[in-house]
Amino acid sequence: MSETSPSTHVYDFAIVGGGAAGFSAGLYAARYLMDTVLFEGEFGGETATASTIENWPGSKAIDGYDLMVNMREQVKALDVNIIPELIFGVERDGDIFVLKSATQEVRAKTMLLAIGAARRKLGLPEEDRLRGKGISYCTTCDSPLYKGKRVAVVGGGDASIKGVNMLAKFAQEIFVLVRKDTLRAEPINQDLLKKNQERMALHLLYETEVKEIHGDEKLKSLTLSRPYEGSTELAVDGLMIEIGAQPIRELPQSIGVELDDMGFIKTDGMMRTNVAGVTAAGDCTNLFGHFKQDITASCEGAVAATAAHEFLQKLHAAA
Amino acid sequence: MSETSPSTHVYDFAIVGGGAAGFSAGLYAARYLMDTVLFEGEFGGETATASTIENWPGSKAIDGYDLMVNMREQVKALDVNIIPELIFGVERDGDIFVLKSATQEVRAKTMLLAIGAARRKLGLPEEDRLRGKGISYCTTCDSPLYKGKRVAVVGGGDASIKGVNMLAKFAQEIFVLVRKDTLRAEPINQDLLKKNQERMALHLLYETEVKEIHGDEKLKSLTLSRPYEGSTELAVDGLMIEIGAQPIRELPQSIGVELDDMGFIKTDGMMRTNVAGVTAAGDCTNLFGHFKQDITASCEGAVAATAAHEFLQKLHAAA
Repeated sequence: MSETSPSTHVYDFAIVGGGAAGFSAGLYAARYLMDTVLFEGEFGGETATASTIENWPGSKAIDGYDLMVNMREQVKALDVNIIPELIFGVERDGDIFVLKSATQEVRAKTMLLAIGAARRKLGLPEEDRLRGKGISYCTTCDSPLYKGKRVAVVGGGDASIKGVNMLAKFAQEIFVLVRKDTLRAEPINQDLLKKNQERMALHLLYETEVKEIHGDEKLKSLTLSRPYEGSTELAVDGLMIEIGAQPIRELPQSIGVELDDMGFIKTDGMMRTNVAGVTAAGDCTNLFGHFKQDITASCEGAVAATAAHEFLQKLHAAA
Repeated sequence: MSETSPSTHVYDFAIVGGGAAGFSAGLYAARYLMDTVLFEGEFGGETATASTIENWPGSKAIDGYDLMVNMREQVKALDVNIIPELIFGVERDGDIFVLKSATQEVRAKTMLLAIGAARRKLGLPEEDRLRGKGISYCTTCDSPLYKGKRVAVVGGGDASIKGVNMLAKFAQEIFVLVRKDTLRAEPINQDLLKKNQERMALHLLYETEVKEIHGDEKLKSLTLSRPYEGSTELAVDGLMIEIGAQPIRELPQSIGVELDDMGFIKTDGMMRTNVAGVTAAGDCTNLFGHFKQDITASCEGAVAATAAHEFLQKLHAAA
């Protein structure tokens, strides 16, 4: 919709992020006829890496990548300007936001941070290659895939143990690999863990780390830092890596957006941040606490676009 | 999953409502392996009546009815017990909820109210038949379908005028039919309305009601209670009926669930009501204010199932 050169044209709405939250916001913004630009960064966000998704309402099974391709095409068809680049800085020019990527400098009246959060990784060879082939970063998402299987879960925090309690409904045998000598999970989740240990093969391996990951087409085994039953080799069908998510602090902080103690962006119920005209949606926020799903991200993106539209309507009415 | 007779079996989770919120909750509950029953009532809720939906992320265009059929099949395949009946009462037996329909009496540890809200109708002949064929109850949802068209909007409240301001981006000519002699919309939306009047054919017809609706395959014209430009016949392509929604108060109130002034169910951010074990989701709630969409209802259903699951986990850990 840009009729002038990029340097002087001012978009209504700039979306930073090409995951479920960003594309859903793009869809709604386009329907509100907002002149919208979307910086895609890594296409598809967390979802695109998720292999088969069975919890997207209305789709029994859909590949995460395909879902994101569908969302992107839907937004593209509505004339949202999709720029396949990462943002590396935002500046203010009065009330206008100036977003900079490698080749573009874009001006906008409102903007959405839908920048996701990086899952913390073990940083081992094969970890990326076997993602979605036995390796997962969301136990509550992927537990149903491991019915009757042997699964290792890395992490002693609350998200990890909640995940183990969910996985305990499906898996045949579970190994919880904890780097320290204690769990940090909430007492209630530790209580439930003990109950699960009474009824199934659920082993807590303290002071134990994963040293190596093995597998060709799919995950086969792990090498542990400390032997379990006499061997450091552990054959498993699944490895759930639950060592936290790392929100990206720099971009929101650079424009004065408030974060919570964990680094997630604070929003009100309409996904507005403390900075007028700036909304946030998806994994970089914490509206539903630890519960971060495609359906919540998509919802939040739609709400954020609605809040941005209302913001512009007020500007227009006051003009 | 019921292994005993309906009168003694206790489900983990009873969902009341077969719309987007109810089915999404059923999907998530089944994935949490909660023993779940779903009272469907009117299949598909508001969505099933919506004809083509273009704002469901990932689907360029899908019939509302088909979307709900897909959601239902997905839930059915996961062994949720779907009962195609309306609930007419809920009682308490200690901590257990006893839900009664025409032929069933079902016991559950937790329950979800996903009972929607009835759109207020004009109550005219042809109104139901032409719904989705020119008649709509959601201007912000359906405005893009009326590009270059003549559309009448009924209502002088805030939702109506916000809808008119959205529709003004698409329609060629708009008639706002207001029963009283003033608008009740917020000043800011009235300001924007005036701006829109300056640039397009947007007529405010006060003290004017719709007496008759005409059309065969689709809406053709209206008979008004007061002539406009000498005639009570008004040819239109669309009729947006924006006279409010009527939440169902009786069912939530019968178990002590708190409502807001408008009659919507009060929830916290995880869709929990004031009654332990009772969650709510979708159009009967107000998490995102007036913004009620398939994507928000589906999100809220998933969140409510998650809250119910956490509630049961706590019961289990404490047992």
